[in-house]
Formats: sequence, structure tokens, C-alpha cells
Amino acid sequence: MPELRKDPIIGRWVIISTGRGKRPSNFTHKREDVLKGGFCPFCPNNEDKTPPEVLAYRNDGSKPNTSGWSVRVVPNKFPALQIEGYLHREGVGIFDKMSGIGAHEVIIESPEHNESLATLPIKQVENVLWAFRDRIMDLKKDTRFRYILIFKNQGFEAGATLEHPHSQLIALPIIPSLVAEEMKGAKEYYEYKERCIFCDIVRQETTDRSRVVAENNEFVTLSPYAPRFPFETWILPKMHDASFEDIQKQNMENLARILSESLKRMSRVLNDPPYNFIIHNSPLKDGKTTYEDYYHWHIEIMPKLTHVAGFEAGSGFYINPTPPEEAAKYLKEAEI
Amino acid sequence: MPELRKDPIIGRWVIISTGRGKRPSNFTHKREDVLKGGFCPFCPNNEDKTPPEVLAYRNDGSKPNTSGWSVRVVPNKFPALQIEGYLHREGVGIFDKMSGIGAHEVIIESPEHNESLATLPIKQVENVLWAFRDRIMDLKKDTRFRYILIFKNQGFEAGATLEHPHSQLIALPIIPSLVAEEMKGAKEYYEYKERCIFCDIVRQETTDRSRVVAENNEFVTLSPYAPRFPFETWILPKMHDASFEDIQKQNMENLARILSESLKRMSRVLNDPPYNFIIHNSPLKDGKTTYEDYYHWHIEIMPKLTHVAGFEAGSGFYINPTPPEEAAKYLKEAEI
Repeated sequence: MPELRKDPIIGRWVIISTGRGKRPSNFTHKREDVLKGGFCPFCPNNEDKTPPEVLAYRNDGSKPNTSGWSVRVVPNKFPALQIEGYLHREGVGIFDKMSGIGAHEVIIESPEHNESLATLPIKQVENVLWAFRDRIMDLKKDTRFRYILIFKNQGFEAGATLEHPHSQLIALPIIPSLVAEEMKGAKEYYEYKERCIFCDIVRQETTDRSRVVAENNEFVTLSPYAPRFPFETWILPKMHDASFEDIQKQNMENLARILSESLKRMSRVLNDPPYNFIIHNSPLKDGKTTYEDYYHWHIEIMPKLTHVAGFEAGSGFYINPTPPEEAAKYLKEAEI
Repeated sequence: MPELRKDPIIGRWVIISTGRGKRPSNFTHKREDVLKGGFCPFCPNNEDKTPPEVLAYRNDGSKPNTSGWSVRVVPNKFPALQIEGYLHREGVGIFDKMSGIGAHEVIIESPEHNESLATLPIKQVENVLWAFRDRIMDLKKDTRFRYILIFKNQGFEAGATLEHPHSQLIALPIIPSLVAEEMKGAKEYYEYKERCIFCDIVRQETTDRSRVVAENNEFVTLSPYAPRFPFETWILPKMHDASFEDIQKQNMENLARILSESLKRMSRVLNDPPYNFIIHNSPLKDGKTTYEDYYHWHIEIMPKLTHVAGFEAGSGFYINPTPPEEAAKYLKEAEI
């Protein structure tokens, strides 16, 4: 069973796959090995090659685990965490660990192997977002979980191991360290200013305009003021909202529109780069803490253009060769 | 001039290269473009192709900026920060910035193009470590600086742009975010336990042994308990010591020995992988804070085996497929 282990100095939890650890010789796989297998378990008619679906949108009355779906969610065949078991916490001398309980699911975004979120119709992007929301609503009933992380790895260099368009979801018994830091920073700002820092950012950026990439009635896409990565963008709801899953039905279409537009602009300017996005959402409610006032969910999109090396990861110090104002200008002016 | 900009939510400073920002088409360089240039500015007799040296170890009475050196330190020709200027702090609405003042130097580790820190004689590794120390002693006189970051990118995938063995140094007017977090965590532990957490880790690990990779009288190399990366190792002084530059002369040889051994073991087990190391050192003294009691300098070595993607960078959440106990066993048992 995998373990969650805590770095004793900075308190960051890490998943350690115990039991079937990766041996030194397993790290040599190449782009070709991974992406050009020929067979795709996510394509229609191969439904029996994935674990049974936990959700599928079907308009044609087709049966579960057969073709006919537009979006399909399945457990990850090689999960980083295990859904069954008791959440057991334990000390190991001065160290702390926890059983690796969690859910790891794959959201198959389309039956079409060669599409991507940037090329799919808006309606289909909206369906993917609804699938994210429906899975959150279901998984938050499980009181073992504190956080649901939704992310996408697109392209080999960004960590994808299959080409078919998909995103992933990991439900965790802990809060990821960067989200915890954002929570803390946003809370301190709120206590000092009595305002949400993300709302203040949206207000300043939509007035200043130099870092705005795209905008509609409910959402704005920005190059953030101090981005770690060149051409990094954030999509924020303009109105204060702590939790993605609370989104109003009529706003989902505009979220799909701006996500699609932002990905299209990035693809155009950077020639279809590998990228990641992550939904930074509130932790699940534990009855003790309320985040509603000071946290503000958003999506962070990071194209993978440079070798982010251990230097950055190991120091927390980033050198970004492209000012966000220039990145925003390129993205904004791209013809899509 | 470059700028230091602060993320308003979590307080992380980032260098933004303004002025000559990297355009979208500049991100497409390949391994071949970078490493196989033919001409090497770090090789002997090409001393005039680098900025004038700030330090060189010469035993033959040779003149500065000529051949005859064993270790040579020069300013980086394309520095991330600028040494000249006044350290100016400024608000931009709710945002904060600082002029990009700093030093960025290259430590050329040997005249031999095809050597590496893992293959150089111990004496030469020791010279490299003395060069780190001498540069820290010189740069800490500059009161604009708060931190001196010493690191190595080896191999294209780890961010190296030249093959010739070299490390780098960046002097900064801020403390890198991960070091600041370590400081904070170590301080909290010290206040609670009245002991250094790193000393406690050394004590527990040298008793338990399952994560010890190498050891001598003064230093120990460990696979840390909760590593983010497979085969990550840390070298720690066994005796409490806050600052690398305070190292006793007679200990430097043992540091060179264990660094060399740790790199050799990693090279052997992982087939000469790209890697980074970073010296996690105390901040420079500012007259207000003392770190002596609770901080404990160390070196973190991270082979680059997986695509650490935006997912990890964007969530702070890491999945490590190799338990540190297994990594330590492979490294410890390697024949070197």
C-alpha cells in the first residue's frame, strides 16, 4: 500500500509508492515508448480495458462500459493512492506517515483520440467541467478526504503517458502544500485588509489591462504579476467564490469558453506546447475551518517550455525569462 | 534591468527578466543546439571568452585570465541579476517589486572538459568546495545581499547549457522560498523541542540505517524520509553547524570525499543521470536574526529521472515512485 509521508522540516506531504517501487532501470523510458503504443484504452469500444466507469455522460441510452459516451470517468488503472482501507496515522520516531488512502481517477474528455481541450467544441469542454464538478460532489461525501486535486498533463514533457485527451483527479486525506500556502497567505491578507486578495488582484488587473489575456462577463484570464513560468496564465472568476463546485449553472458555459480560448491562444503562440493545468480549489469542509471569505478558486495553466530543474524545485527560487506583460501581449494578439 | 517580483498570495519572490524577454520562438532549442557547439568558453586558453575572473586557484604563478588554473570563477556572461545598482523597493498597486540586484557567477570546476565532479580527484573536488566558500566570504561583505545560492545543473535535462564541468552561484537580496520555509520549520521545532531538527534526523537515521547511503566521521548521506524525487539524497554534517562557510579546514576533505562518493554511487546506479544539487545554507546575517541554534546547512542532490511537471510545481504535491529505503539500498550496494 502506498504511504503518505511528511517532510519533518517543512511539513510537506509526499506520496511514496511502497511495495512495487520503481527500480533504477525503469526510469529510462522514452517519448516513443510511452505515446506510440498503437492501442488506446481510452478510445470507444475499448471500455473493457479500463476499470469500470464511475461516471459517463451518455445521450443515446447506451449501457455503462460500452461506447456511446461523450465524457467518461474511470479509476486510474495504476493509482497513486488506494481507495480501500482505513486512514491510519502513525509516527516513525520523529517522522510522520499516513496510509496512502485516496481516489485517483481519469476524466476521458472526448471519444475522439485526436482532439484536445483546445480543439473540442465549447459544449464538450463544458461537459468535461461538469464531470469535474460531479466527481467532486460525489467524492466529498467521503469524510476521509480533505482535498480534491483536478489537473491535466498534456504532452509527454508535461507528464502525460497517453495521448487520448484526458485529465485526472486525486482525492487526498491532506491539503497539498502550495494550496495550504495560498490559504495561509489569503487568510493573512483578509485579516489585515478585510478583503479577498484574489478579488483585489482581479480588480487591479482588469483596470490596468497589461496582463489581461482574455475576459468575459464572469471570468478573466491573466498573466500573473510574478509568474514562475513563461506564458503561465490563471483563470479567475471575477465574483468572489471559494469553491469551484459551487459554480452557477449559467456560468459554466462562460468558464468553458474562457478555458477553451485561453488554451487556443497558448497553442497558437507556442505551437501547441506540452502543458499542465491545475484547479486550485478550497479544501473540503471539515466543520472547523471556513474558507469562504478569503479563498477564491482559480485555474493555473503552465506551458512546459523550459527544463524546470531541481534547482528551482530545490530552492523554491524561479527565474522567468519572459515578463508577463510581454506574454500577455503575445497571447492576447494571437489570431485564433 | 531584471526585476524581483513577489507573488502577492504566498510571498514567493521570482526573477523576471524584463527588457530582453524571451520570445515564444526562443523556447524551441534542442539538446543538440545547446551542448554540441564545439567551442567551449570554459576550456583553458579561452579565458578571454568569459568575463574577467573573480577568483582562480593557480599553483604555477600564471597570470589572471590565462591558462594555468585548477578552479576558476567568472561572472555569468548572461546573468539573471545585475551586480551594479541601488537596491530599490517599490509597490505597484497591491504588488511588490525590487530591482534585480545580485551576483551571478560560474565556478569552473576543472580545466578538463570531459571530467565531472564524480570523476575528479578528491583534492580537486575539495578545491571546488573551497572556491564556493571563498566566494561566499567575499560576497557576504555586500550588505545588499541576504542569501547566496550555490547549485549545480549537470546535463541538458537538468538545465545545463554547457558541458564543461561547472557550478553556479547567485547572490540574492531575498531568501529563496523553500529555504525560508525550512528556516521557519526548523525554528518552530527548536522552540518546541529545544533541539535542532536536522540533528535529530541525523541521530535517528544513523541509528536506523535503512536510509543511509554513505558516511564518514563528519558527514552522512541519506535518502530523506519523505523525498519528492526518486533517488534524491541529502548530505548533512553530523555535528550541528548552521553555515557552510564556517566549515573547519580539516572537515573539508571529508566533505569532498562524501560528495564525490555520493555522486559516484548515483552515477553508477542511474547510469550517469542529469542531476542538480543545491547547498541549503543559512541566510547572511542581518544583525537581527540568529539562525545558529536551529538551522543546519546541508546539500540536496536530485537526479532528474522523471518529468517533474507543472502538476507537481503547481500543487506542491509530489508522487515518488521509489521508496527511499529501496533507493538507499541500491546506492549503498553499488560498486564504485
